Amino acid sequence: MKFIGNQEELLFLLQSAAKIVPPRTSIDYLEGIYLKAEGKYLKIAATNLEAGIKNFLPVKVEEEGRVVLPPKFADIVRLSGGKELEVQVDENYNAHIYGGNSRFLLKGIDPQDFPQLPQWEGEEDWSIKTETFKSMVRHSLISVSHDEGKPALTGVLFKVEGNRLTLVSTDSFRLTIRKGRIENPGDNKGLYLIPLKVLSELIKFNFSQDTIKVKIVKNQVLFKVDDFLFISRLLDEKFPQVERIIPDKYNTFFKVARNDLISSLQRVMLISEGNNYIFKIRIQGGNMLLSSNSEMGSIEEEIKGNKEGEDMELYLNSRFLLDSLRAMEEEEAAMNFTGSTGPLIFDYKGDEEEFFHLILPIKS
Amino acid sequence: MKFIGNQEELLFLLQSAAKIVPPRTSIDYLEGIYLKAEGKYLKIAATNLEAGIKNFLPVKVEEEGRVVLPPKFADIVRLSGGKELEVQVDENYNAHIYGGNSRFLLKGIDPQDFPQLPQWEGEEDWSIKTETFKSMVRHSLISVSHDEGKPALTGVLFKVEGNRLTLVSTDSFRLTIRKGRIENPGDNKGLYLIPLKVLSELIKFNFSQDTIKVKIVKNQVLFKVDDFLFISRLLDEKFPQVERIIPDKYNTFFKVARNDLISSLQRVMLISEGNNYIFKIRIQGGNMLLSSNSEMGSIEEEIKGNKEGEDMELYLNSRFLLDSLRAMEEEEAAMNFTGSTGPLIFDYKGDEEEFFHLILPIKS
Repeated sequence: MKFIGNQEELLFLLQSAAKIVPPRTSIDYLEGIYLKAEGKYLKIAATNLEAGIKNFLPVKVEEEGRVVLPPKFADIVRLSGGKELEVQVDENYNAHIYGGNSRFLLKGIDPQDFPQLPQWEGEEDWSIKTETFKSMVRHSLISVSHDEGKPALTGVLFKVEGNRLTLVSTDSFRLTIRKGRIENPGDNKGLYLIPLKVLSELIKFNFSQDTIKVKIVKNQVLFKVDDFLFISRLLDEKFPQVERIIPDKYNTFFKVARNDLISSLQRVMLISEGNNYIFKIRIQGGNMLLSSNSEMGSIEEEIKGNKEGEDMELYLNSRFLLDSLRAMEEEEAAMNFTGSTGPLIFDYKGDEEEFFHLILPIKS
Repeated sequence: MKFIGNQEELLFLLQSAAKIVPPRTSIDYLEGIYLKAEGKYLKIAATNLEAGIKNFLPVKVEEEGRVVLPPKFADIVRLSGGKELEVQVDENYNAHIYGGNSRFLLKGIDPQDFPQLPQWEGEEDWSIKTETFKSMVRHSLISVSHDEGKPALTGVLFKVEGNRLTLVSTDSFRLTIRKGRIENPGDNKGLYLIPLKVLSELIKFNFSQDTIKVKIVKNQVLFKVDDFLFISRLLDEKFPQVERIIPDKYNTFFKVARNDLISSLQRVMLISEGNNYIFKIRIQGGNMLLSSNSEMGSIEEEIKGNKEGEDMELYLNSRFLLDSLRAMEEEEAAMNFTGSTGPLIFDYKGDEEEFFHLILPIKS
């Protein structure tokens, strides 16, 4: 196997793999990067038990072949002194890497046991605007659980009905229901639970294409965009029924500039972090009072806004509310309440999109 | 006690204290910030067992007084919504902090047990250009030991003789001797060992004044610049005699662009980190060959340069050499060798300054 490639292009390819499958220094099938030189392309693949990525790059192939190299290969490419790199792999799977005045020998392994990743074949099940998808996932990730003891809650539920996609996530303290439009309406119908890992990495990429294609193959989901193929296993867990905690009416509405509320909550956190992040919201007339106390001292914040409905007070987790506000894009934080034992609810509805977000109160 | 101060100025004051005495969340005399409102100024002081800092700021003092507040006070000032902050301390040492729409109560403590820090009185022992001092300290810190088991080596030896200052530091693998000019020549003479902590923090500040004044008070050293007073205890340890390891002649000289050598060493490190950072330098004709191998693979680098004297080879620690090269400013790395069992030596001499740096070889 032998190819000559551009240093920057190779680096982009390898670093994108490292985002999904974090590099470690030891070599193992699951910790290595699979490389295949074929025709006019270098194809790469990387995977762990949960997620995978495939991509390819035009290079000058002088001899076709395959190998698995440790993630250190990405570091070698990054620090290379040359604009072009020549990589030659011998019969013992040793990669000889030439660039600038450097000659590396990097020990690789036989690629034959590298796990087979699914191929993208035929048409997509559905597709979605890249920006819509990123916004929907970013909102959903607010309330995904990171607790491996609750595996069903570590995923985002994808519900496909015609040209409507609904994402649901909850960590049992918060709930997000995010709706958006699918680009190619058809008789699509589906319900699957996708782990957060691939989703949270996917939204960090700057893609050129404005559409992501999505397809389910057996128990895996495939996302195709630019020259990337992202792969994630589906979670085989029962997602809870969430509709029962959604109130059917609100008693108080309060609207305030989102950035002002974020600043206030950052200050509240200085005190509330000494008391499990608990703070109190009190709505009285056109004012919202935030307060908290702990062994360090106390804080009171006053923000003016627009109220409709009854005065009320409620205990909440300040960190949860701050997370939610930071993930929003709206200028205004439009809050709905049902009373001192009910949740705080944000519900932004557009023509084709909806962001519904609920935070349960703390019993005072 | 009550004062009104500018938010940005207060923040600068408190954050500079936090650089020397890292903030923690609990309150203790040694972890708190001492504040004194007197005349037209707010004076602050912070200290731990090793280092201390004092500074002051013009504020509007409405009631004189003193208090010790937890470092969280700096966070409150940082996140404050107002351009001005009003701070009022009651008889129970509770600080009431008003800014924007926030009202904080922060619990403080009685300042009477706060340790007395030395005063700056009278003339300095000597002074030095700020930039000269920073450069000298930065070079010396390369070879200071961080091993608390070797307390003498965790300091920099300051030797004052007339208008000449010499700094010596060694971790027993490396040695730095850095000479520079003192600004006010006199009959200065002194020898003291200063711990790295205050020195490493001092060089991070951007001072307005171009001169630093230095004074020894009992077993402490005081540095005065701008409105700052930095204080450090002196180490009461016997510093080793280092002259015996300095060779009296060199057999090989090799000069190469410093940045090229840094790039090569970064690549060498990718392999040598698997083998205690050991690599080999081989000088042959006008070429320097760097090589290393470990269980990951191997590397060979070739750099052209100017040689004088004999061909030779030597085993060195790649991390040590990289540290040294990164702390230098010269375009060229000018290396001196005595042979395969002797050290690598850099020796840059200016009209009034010298940077002598030695790295011991690894026995192959």
